[in-house]
Amino acid sequence: MAGPCTVESEKQLMTTALAVRKEGATILRGGAFKPSTSPYGFRGMGEEGLKLLAKARAEFGLAVITEVMTPADVPMVCEYADILQIGTRNMQNYMLLDEVGRVEKPVVLKRGMSATIEEWLLAAEYVLSQGNRNVILCERGIRTFEKMTRNTMDISAIPLIKRLSHLPIISDPSQGTGRRDLVIPLSLASVAAGTDGLLVVVHPNPDEALKDGAQSLTLEQFQGLMPQIQSVAHAIGRTILTG
Amino acid sequence: MAGPCTVESEKQLMTTALAVRKEGATILRGGAFKPSTSPYGFRGMGEEGLKLLAKARAEFGLAVITEVMTPADVPMVCEYADILQIGTRNMQNYMLLDEVGRVEKPVVLKRGMSATIEEWLLAAEYVLSQGNRNVILCERGIRTFEKMTRNTMDISAIPLIKRLSHLPIISDPSQGTGRRDLVIPLSLASVAAGTDGLLVVVHPNPDEALKDGAQSLTLEQFQGLMPQIQSVAHAIGRTILTG
Amino acid sequence: MAGPCTVESEKQLMTTALAVRKEGATILRGGAFKPSTSPYGFRGMGEEGLKLLAKARAEFGLAVITEVMTPADVPMVCEYADILQIGTRNMQNYMLLDEVGRVEKPVVLKRGMSATIEEWLLAAEYVLSQGNRNVILCERGIRTFEKMTRNTMDISAIPLIKRLSHLPIISDPSQGTGRRDLVIPLSLASVAAGTDGLLVVVHPNPDEALKDGAQSLTLEQFQGLMPQIQSVAHAIGRTILTG
Amino acid sequence: MAGPCTVESEKQLMTTALAVRKEGATILRGGAFKPSTSPYGFRGMGEEGLKLLAKARAEFGLAVITEVMTPADVPMVCEYADILQIGTRNMQNYMLLDEVGRVEKPVVLKRGMSATIEEWLLAAEYVLSQGNRNVILCERGIRTFEKMTRNTMDISAIPLIKRLSHLPIISDPSQGTGRRDLVIPLSLASVAAGTDGLLVVVHPNPDEALKDGAQSLTLEQFQGLMPQIQSVAHAIGRTILTG
Repeated sequence: MAGPCTVESEKQLMTTALAVRKEGATILRGGAFKPSTSPYGFRGMGEEGLKLLAKARAEFGLAVITEVMTPADVPMVCEYADILQIGTRNMQNYMLLDEVGRVEKPVVLKRGMSATIEEWLLAAEYVLSQGNRNVILCERGIRTFEKMTRNTMDISAIPLIKRLSHLPIISDPSQGTGRRDLVIPLSLASVAAGTDGLLVVVHPNPDEALKDGAQSLTLEQFQGLMPQIQSVAHAIGRTILTG
Repeated sequence: MAGPCTVESEKQLMTTALAVRKEGATILRGGAFKPSTSPYGFRGMGEEGLKLLAKARAEFGLAVITEVMTPADVPMVCEYADILQIGTRNMQNYMLLDEVGRVEKPVVLKRGMSATIEEWLLAAEYVLSQGNRNVILCERGIRTFEKMTRNTMDISAIPLIKRLSHLPIISDPSQGTGRRDLVIPLSLASVAAGTDGLLVVVHPNPDEALKDGAQSLTLEQFQGLMPQIQSVAHAIGRTILTG
Repeated sequence: MAGPCTVESEKQLMTTALAVRKEGATILRGGAFKPSTSPYGFRGMGEEGLKLLAKARAEFGLAVITEVMTPADVPMVCEYADILQIGTRNMQNYMLLDEVGRVEKPVVLKRGMSATIEEWLLAAEYVLSQGNRNVILCERGIRTFEKMTRNTMDISAIPLIKRLSHLPIISDPSQGTGRRDLVIPLSLASVAAGTDGLLVVVHPNPDEALKDGAQSLTLEQFQGLMPQIQSVAHAIGRTILTG
Repeated sequence: MAGPCTVESEKQLMTTALAVRKEGATILRGGAFKPSTSPYGFRGMGEEGLKLLAKARAEFGLAVITEVMTPADVPMVCEYADILQIGTRNMQNYMLLDEVGRVEKPVVLKRGMSATIEEWLLAAEYVLSQGNRNVILCERGIRTFEKMTRNTMDISAIPLIKRLSHLPIISDPSQGTGRRDLVIPLSLASVAAGTDGLLVVVHPNPDEALKDGAQSLTLEQFQGLMPQIQSVAHAIGRTILTG
């Protein structure tokens, strides 16, 4: 899964979609509704962004994953997206979990930034208990005292979840590190630890990104990443599905 | 502000309301919608609980504070409550913050369990920027590695908020410690550090509480607390308003 | 207990000693051997600093507390100091704990910056088990994700230690917050929570301090602190011993 | 680098040394002086343990790494060991760092359990600034709120150190996770992230280990680990040196 943090324009999205498709990504990520720590930050394009995602899907044959932030938006997001994402700040937004538990789309549930693994599995249980069995957990780093990275990726969570649960687990090294130069090594580490997928932020021009440019891979870096992933996956006896 | 964590029954609520009123509390706390880490835990009485709170208000002349968990519930909760509470798990539920920013009731905004002070002030800014100027911050402990307490009360946050903001700040030593035997010393410490108010969980029979009994003061303990608070407040040149 | 973080010169030490003595402090703190995160930072005056401390003791009738960093220095520090301090970085320096356990001077054991309360009590047990029964625990803040303060004071530790142990506990709000403007409120909070003593950094001219100026009280601030402490202590039914 | 956490007996050490040698490990780890959180725990065999390590070295041609805990022991440990280890609790024991900086043996410097990367590099600088240029950093997990693992391995530290410093970095997934079932996936993740070496605890009979049995690999597990490491190293274009 790859794509920009946030949908910014048709051109930005289509360029990225084409590039990630070419390298073998099968799912396009892109935020239309974006949580922003400050009310004065960019909060996404809303439904316009969803329409662009749907257009990219039609054009490139990619499935689309995007975040839903509140129960009332679930039906609208379901119209456009193939996979719903619950962000880290909403991992314990229980009424939202209830709501996505009642639809049939797969749900990617990001780990809360200070959630224990037990709390995370219980949050997944909210979705499961409403009938939606397609929950995918996503490790995206936890908050620690270390200041050089935005979060500390808890790579141990990957094999731990595999022992404790039947749910698939994927890894988001872009949010997990907050630094472009660490995304590739942490992607490879995640694969070596057994991750079932990667969610990577890619932007055609990271320095001009409206959000999270510092952690976005360039298209060239993404191109370099894909064969390395394949190679490490092969080394531990797994195969990566690409499109 | 005092009262049970969760409204459980008319008898439980009325007994507590009477007792806290008698000791001089002016605001009754009580949860009707309760976030529960597990979907199989008790999630509150819902609107029934709100009606009981309104009844206690009418009977004892106490103002009522209760939690609202999702934008769609804001109008209903406003009908019954005098003060809205945003819980720790929803500190960054931005659409909920937007919504309570558009009503006229005061909002108590609890600090997220791993929120920095900067993020907390920015969350308050969501409410303020929608026009609601009555935001009260509430320190309720942060998540650390220490295992003997449920959270670590960040008492420094009290004087820091006073330097950084014009908003009032109150303290919740019940959630902040998770231990009944620490509620009184941490209440007194909060007062000495300059808190503008205390939010204390009181239960007529903590051992039978459906939720958070371990951190609830008994009515007798609450009775003992009030004069001590007065005394420390007086020592630092402040006065506690009681009813 | 009050005094400069580090002994810098005869003039600096004597001015401070005179001032803290006048306000009623009974113990003079001052570092002769100082741990410094960088090897190129100021590491203290060594034995010269100890001699100045002894001189201040003789002149002003104050007891002297100072840090010892390694087993080989214990006899020399014992010659000059009345109380030995084990710093936060050495809380689990077990051979040093063994060594100070074999002398007769009281030992102030600072909490490690990420030590649990259990580990801290077990570190105290190292000293006690060698025969030295005079251990004083010192809460000095723990490491969390919050960036506005150098550490997060764990005020709950004060009443918790009182429940779990017979050892006295004191509080160091200077190291615990790293900010001069928070030292007074956190001192008062510590007293309200039941601390047995305070260890405060005072400097005649904090802006010129070689170390930790940002958290040093001026002599005037210290003068203001003392009556407030008395007042809060009195409010909770305790008396502060002053000289 | 592999071997038991602690040297317990000649038989235990020799069995392990033989097995790890056979699988291609080149350095034998084993503690003779062991930090123990409780003074009543096992603190190691002392010089007897060092002699056994030297015997294993002679017999199997393995280099020996062992911990030194206090400046006064440095000369004795140097007599027996090829590499000195500074444990996590002593990362900021500056007088010990000074002392190992004055000898010629390589020093493995473990990251403090709550040390930032900056503090860790500055601790290395203590050793380097005394003249010893052979410092090897070792990531062994940091302390977080997560309770299912003993520590949280900070895998990002591996590529970060490679960017910030010329020093080699190795990884200790045994201490880093505290769980035998996570040692293999975290070893592979470390290799994929670019680690220069692994320090793994192996015990012929982990259930009877005097210390840290829960995180020790059995000899069979270690046997399974070695070819997987080779395979992942090869996938990222590196070669593992084995004996």
